[in-house]
Amino acid sequence: MAEFTFGVTVMPRKEVLDTQGRAVEEALKREGEPVLSCRVGRFVELKVSASDRKQAEVTAKKVAESLLCNSLIETFTLGEANG
Amino acid sequence: MAEFTFGVTVMPRKEVLDTQGRAVEEALKREGEPVLSCRVGRFVELKVSASDRKQAEVTAKKVAESLLCNSLIETFTLGEANG
Repeated sequence: MAEFTFGVTVMPRKEVLDTQGRAVEEALKREGEPVLSCRVGRFVELKVSASDRKQAEVTAKKVAESLLCNSLIETFTLGEANG
Repeated sequence: MAEFTFGVTVMPRKEVLDTQGRAVEEALKREGEPVLSCRVGRFVELKVSASDRKQAEVTAKKVAESLLCNSLIETFTLGEANG
């Protein structure tokens, strides 16, 4: 079995009031930074054990969909690890 | 002035105990998912107003360094918007 690393970015849906993002946005504007808007989400780095990349992707997607992201209020993108 | 969008990924430093990541990791293992490890950080999408991309990057980097990331316990990477 090999090890594969993914990055799952979970963001609030556009229709949902992103209270954290709004708070950061107001704070940055108050500091005088030329910031127009700000949204805050989560980044989850996952190391998955699988026989090949395809299988690892299936696992990462399943985990993201079912457990990391509340699809009612959030969307996710699966990508490379980072940071 | 134009509008530029950045994604700032803020992750706990490797030396720091990532309690959120550990909790998610244990939960996924309990569910029987073939997950080896998990780290949880933040993803901040920033829209910056600037005259060109270079200037926008300077602002985004400054904001990330000074306000979005606590460099004592976290590191950040500046990238493209996402999600």
